[in-house]
Amino acid sequence: MGEFELIARYFTRPPAAGGMVARGVGDDCAVLDLGDRWLALTTDMLVEGRHFFAGAEPEALGHKALAVNLSDLAAAGAAPRCFFLALALPQADEVWLAAFSRGMLALADAHGCTLAGGDTTRSSAGGPLTICITAVGETPPGAALSRAGALVGDDLWVSGEVGDAALALERLRSAVAPAQAGAQCLCSTTLGPGLRRGDGALDAIRQRLDRPEPRVALGLRLRGLASSCIDVSDGLLGDLGHIRERSGVGAELLWSAVPRSPTLRAQPPEVEQRCALAGGDDYEVLFTAAPAQRDAVQTAGAAAGVAVKRIGRITAEPGCRVLDADGRMIDTAGLASFDHFAP
Amino acid sequence: MGEFELIARYFTRPPAAGGMVARGVGDDCAVLDLGDRWLALTTDMLVEGRHFFAGAEPEALGHKALAVNLSDLAAAGAAPRCFFLALALPQADEVWLAAFSRGMLALADAHGCTLAGGDTTRSSAGGPLTICITAVGETPPGAALSRAGALVGDDLWVSGEVGDAALALERLRSAVAPAQAGAQCLCSTTLGPGLRRGDGALDAIRQRLDRPEPRVALGLRLRGLASSCIDVSDGLLGDLGHIRERSGVGAELLWSAVPRSPTLRAQPPEVEQRCALAGGDDYEVLFTAAPAQRDAVQTAGAAAGVAVKRIGRITAEPGCRVLDADGRMIDTAGLASFDHFAP
Repeated sequence: MGEFELIARYFTRPPAAGGMVARGVGDDCAVLDLGDRWLALTTDMLVEGRHFFAGAEPEALGHKALAVNLSDLAAAGAAPRCFFLALALPQADEVWLAAFSRGMLALADAHGCTLAGGDTTRSSAGGPLTICITAVGETPPGAALSRAGALVGDDLWVSGEVGDAALALERLRSAVAPAQAGAQCLCSTTLGPGLRRGDGALDAIRQRLDRPEPRVALGLRLRGLASSCIDVSDGLLGDLGHIRERSGVGAELLWSAVPRSPTLRAQPPEVEQRCALAGGDDYEVLFTAAPAQRDAVQTAGAAAGVAVKRIGRITAEPGCRVLDADGRMIDTAGLASFDHFAP
Repeated sequence: MGEFELIARYFTRPPAAGGMVARGVGDDCAVLDLGDRWLALTTDMLVEGRHFFAGAEPEALGHKALAVNLSDLAAAGAAPRCFFLALALPQADEVWLAAFSRGMLALADAHGCTLAGGDTTRSSAGGPLTICITAVGETPPGAALSRAGALVGDDLWVSGEVGDAALALERLRSAVAPAQAGAQCLCSTTLGPGLRRGDGALDAIRQRLDRPEPRVALGLRLRGLASSCIDVSDGLLGDLGHIRERSGVGAELLWSAVPRSPTLRAQPPEVEQRCALAGGDDYEVLFTAAPAQRDAVQTAGAAAGVAVKRIGRITAEPGCRVLDADGRMIDTAGLASFDHFAP
């Protein structure tokens, strides 16, 4: 049973009629309808040895733990307001805590997002460091973006570049101690011990893995413009799958249009494709918009200071076809998105 | 460095002026001021081997994980609206998940609290089951109860009875495998493996540990009545200490008035006192109110279907004095409240 099936079976319930929950389980954020405004809420749990290497640099980890939540708010077009931090710590290490809170609160300050509460506890004997953040954002009534809403004929867009974080992670996994490399640490965050210097090519791309910049400003400008939106955390094809499923549509993706860095383009073709299409951990936004909005989308990207690229279109035919420059289908059957509970 | 000092040093910041956070770190709930209503939010993380025994009965665990959060809402006088569930699971065990979600959603339904979102992940290899819940409640503007606000001369009240959960936990700890008993599992939740039947006295009190009933109905009726309020999770004296500190007052507690079960009264005096005054895990509410409100408080308790007991008063003299029936001070220096990071 996969992660998504598991959630659907045991933890999905329709919101109660008349309650404040306008959208529940199944999107980047849940949405509370408070009449004159909507609140978007999201929660993410990061476990040492699973989502990040043991010994991860604490300042980067503090940044990333909040960034992945702000990325969910960005995908909902919500302005960050505040967040809650629950921590299970192996020990109370002051040097670690000072660096972790510095990284986290610097990003929070940059987005005007207040640390409003939390819970600090000790993890079980020898247990992993565990971080759970719940972030709260705000939109005008009805304005929150959603995975549902993509229409046949819409353009498919993505911000920034995809695949570098996955490439950095592949390099790190081959470099870390075998015990950690074996930990299936597939959406890990930052550097393991002893990896802070050295490999020049790794240095150039690891910022994408360690310090993702949530696309908050872009998300705000996509309100009223994008017909659907999601952040790319599980991999481009996997997250496109969530849009397709929730919107009841298919998609056609142009491989040549998918934005990727020179470093990624210099990789063997199978590595390049795997990282860009199924790598995950990019924290870009993937969204759809009507063709009439092309100029407006470009303007939104420019105003937000992030490149936006048209990479395909929404189709009536279900499924997802990835096409090469000559219009031939590329076989992506071997590219699975990350699923914590895949058999 | 203790848990509370640690939170204060690295994670306490004044809410930004003009933001929606009316109350931040330092109370049972944070409060968001949304103009025509306030939202109260709280988050709690439970770690296997620390907050509950490995092998804990999943239906009871699902109940308790949500109950401890609803208890925080009760202490704020907030009506539960929705909650978010983050889970790190060692494996996707369908039988376990079905029972866990049944226990959790039954309590949620009883309080009209919608599961609005969450995150499911796999814990690290061999890592502990970890549960993090964030709950959202609502009050009218300005009506949320707080730990601050107790005034000199106010009565001190507690709901229900205290100490049974701690007694049950002491019994369980002496019965479980040494490995788990050694895990400092001091605010654990439910039964370990092989402990589902047997000890009759244990059976009678273990419901208080396994299935706490959050005092939501009472909390709602204390709005406008109580001058301060907290839920008893760390132990009566420890939680009274939070009220004293936040309100800038002292307190006098009458030991003979502290409500406790016949089972607890039958224990050796030192066990009785330790469990009732410092045991924790009671999830009763401890609150203060002006003497003029005595009848109103009794009426509130009766309407909510829970006993309320006057157990002392708020004093100008700082600190907490516990008095016996003859007015002599009881030495409580050896009774420490639970602190995850106590040296």
